[in-house]
Amino acid sequence: MLRVAFLGRSGHAYVALRSMAETEDAELVAYATIPPEEPPDYFDAWKDQMGDAKGYDSWQELVDQEKPDLVQVSGAYYQNGVVAAYAAERGCHVLVEKPIATTLDQLATLKTAVAQSGVRLTAMLGTRLAPPYQAAKRAIDDGAIGEPLLVYAQKSYKFGTNRPDWYGVREKYGGSIPWITIHMIDMINFLLADPFASVVAMHKTFTVGGTHPECEDVMSMLFELRNGGAAAVNGDYLRPPGAGSHGDDRIRIVGAEGIVEVMAGRTTLIDKDGERELPLEETEDNIFLNFVNHLAHGAEHVIGPNDAFRSTEVALKARDAADTGQTVSLLDSPYGAA
Amino acid sequence: MLRVAFLGRSGHAYVALRSMAETEDAELVAYATIPPEEPPDYFDAWKDQMGDAKGYDSWQELVDQEKPDLVQVSGAYYQNGVVAAYAAERGCHVLVEKPIATTLDQLATLKTAVAQSGVRLTAMLGTRLAPPYQAAKRAIDDGAIGEPLLVYAQKSYKFGTNRPDWYGVREKYGGSIPWITIHMIDMINFLLADPFASVVAMHKTFTVGGTHPECEDVMSMLFELRNGGAAAVNGDYLRPPGAGSHGDDRIRIVGAEGIVEVMAGRTTLIDKDGERELPLEETEDNIFLNFVNHLAHGAEHVIGPNDAFRSTEVALKARDAADTGQTVSLLDSPYGAA
Repeated sequence: MLRVAFLGRSGHAYVALRSMAETEDAELVAYATIPPEEPPDYFDAWKDQMGDAKGYDSWQELVDQEKPDLVQVSGAYYQNGVVAAYAAERGCHVLVEKPIATTLDQLATLKTAVAQSGVRLTAMLGTRLAPPYQAAKRAIDDGAIGEPLLVYAQKSYKFGTNRPDWYGVREKYGGSIPWITIHMIDMINFLLADPFASVVAMHKTFTVGGTHPECEDVMSMLFELRNGGAAAVNGDYLRPPGAGSHGDDRIRIVGAEGIVEVMAGRTTLIDKDGERELPLEETEDNIFLNFVNHLAHGAEHVIGPNDAFRSTEVALKARDAADTGQTVSLLDSPYGAA
Repeated sequence: MLRVAFLGRSGHAYVALRSMAETEDAELVAYATIPPEEPPDYFDAWKDQMGDAKGYDSWQELVDQEKPDLVQVSGAYYQNGVVAAYAAERGCHVLVEKPIATTLDQLATLKTAVAQSGVRLTAMLGTRLAPPYQAAKRAIDDGAIGEPLLVYAQKSYKFGTNRPDWYGVREKYGGSIPWITIHMIDMINFLLADPFASVVAMHKTFTVGGTHPECEDVMSMLFELRNGGAAAVNGDYLRPPGAGSHGDDRIRIVGAEGIVEVMAGRTTLIDKDGERELPLEETEDNIFLNFVNHLAHGAEHVIGPNDAFRSTEVALKARDAADTGQTVSLLDSPYGAA
């Protein structure tokens, strides 16, 4: 039985919480907020769902005293890499909100902590498990589209009205490329096995700037792929309140012999035989349970040991490219295939 | 009655041909091929449809002797700008296959010819007239999406098996950005009233290179807009033979207050009130007839006097950006709004 602790309950911590009841392999033993962005009583809203787990005033004290097997880290984004490194250094496996770090220095420190203590780190990049993307992955791996040459991917999100103030502060928020479009960067990393060679990018704050001055709401990236192909990735925080869904995730991959596309939860393949929807397999798609199953039983985890590091590195460098207007190389990564 | 001549029958010349019968304002009086890429007997295939029009061995001789009111120019792409300039200098209005020039020098010469003789030039960029794009245009002009901030557009084409050999020679073909993605560059020019500030781009030849070595089949561009927004444009020549349609044209425009999208011939709007398909108006969508109606009756033509020049300039500079790997400025254009 894995002893699990929650450090912070921001971001997608609820994804882990709601799945605790669905596994016999993990139990929630403790929790603590991550100050100063999270208030001391931040877990009160979840009191009914925390069972006998013990609340701590200090997340460091929790880690030191409880020595959990697995911690879920989800505070303000600039803190996650630091908190995760602290826990990893002390032998905890870690599930971290994405981005797992908001600076390249944080990322390197986290990598060292994980490597030296031999724990496993993963990230809230569970879109990989969604059936439409799994279907796309199978098609690509089966050679249905031949060599992938051209990609378009997008994330379109609603900003809503209750984002924390620190979303408006770059050094706390980290930027919308690492927060939003990282999902599609990671999806390209997943589907095309780290094809990234370089990136140019743009981002800018328009309508959300009134309340959150440094929160970009428009992002656009052009990646050169190692084989000379290209990937365009658009992201926005401008999805109108009236939209029927929170997001509009898409990816379209044109290969030498076919095109596969995920849009509106469906996966379509076009090849020499025509155009058709691919069957989706209803499988367990919770990233927390997938990770617990890996730790408890050695089942394959959908995010490889270096994947979260690499996807975060690419996102941070894309953000740098947007900040500077320069082309940034993505080759010779310290976070290459394990 | 406008006296019309056809110079060349490559590209989309058939669009003009098939509409000759639908207007009382124009009659076909003469035709000539454009050597050396078009063989002398190239018009024989259309003999039944050419009526009493007179065939000439030389397109220059045709222009000099017939003095047509309007010429349709559609030879190999590197020749169109030169032929159009010759005709314009001699007082002919011109409908030119896109791109209207394959070099910036050709484009400047053509502009001078048109300006000095006071004729009107337009281009085979008739997608502007298609009802889904007209609906998008109305929505944007009505303020339905607020300020446009982020664009994705794409052209996906089949290469097929019978492209002329000169498609494989850059100096004759001009490149796939000017030939294919120019449509979406022009659509952005049309819908957003020339928003282009700069461009970075990539293009490369993959599968079609076996038969056509210098014909790019993958293109990707990232435009910075004047307001700081961005436009990603993807193009490919890799649409599988089995695809249900020849092309897959799309454009999605995210504004400060809404999102409009054209895909699969439908136009969708998302705003604060929700998501809905916009009604399409069945209007005349033939670019030749639209131009004839302008010349004969002063009706508004869908392509403004500078539009074809500007869209071509942007496409040629995007191609240059892809060739050099450099950011190319699109400001201070000599082809600004008329």
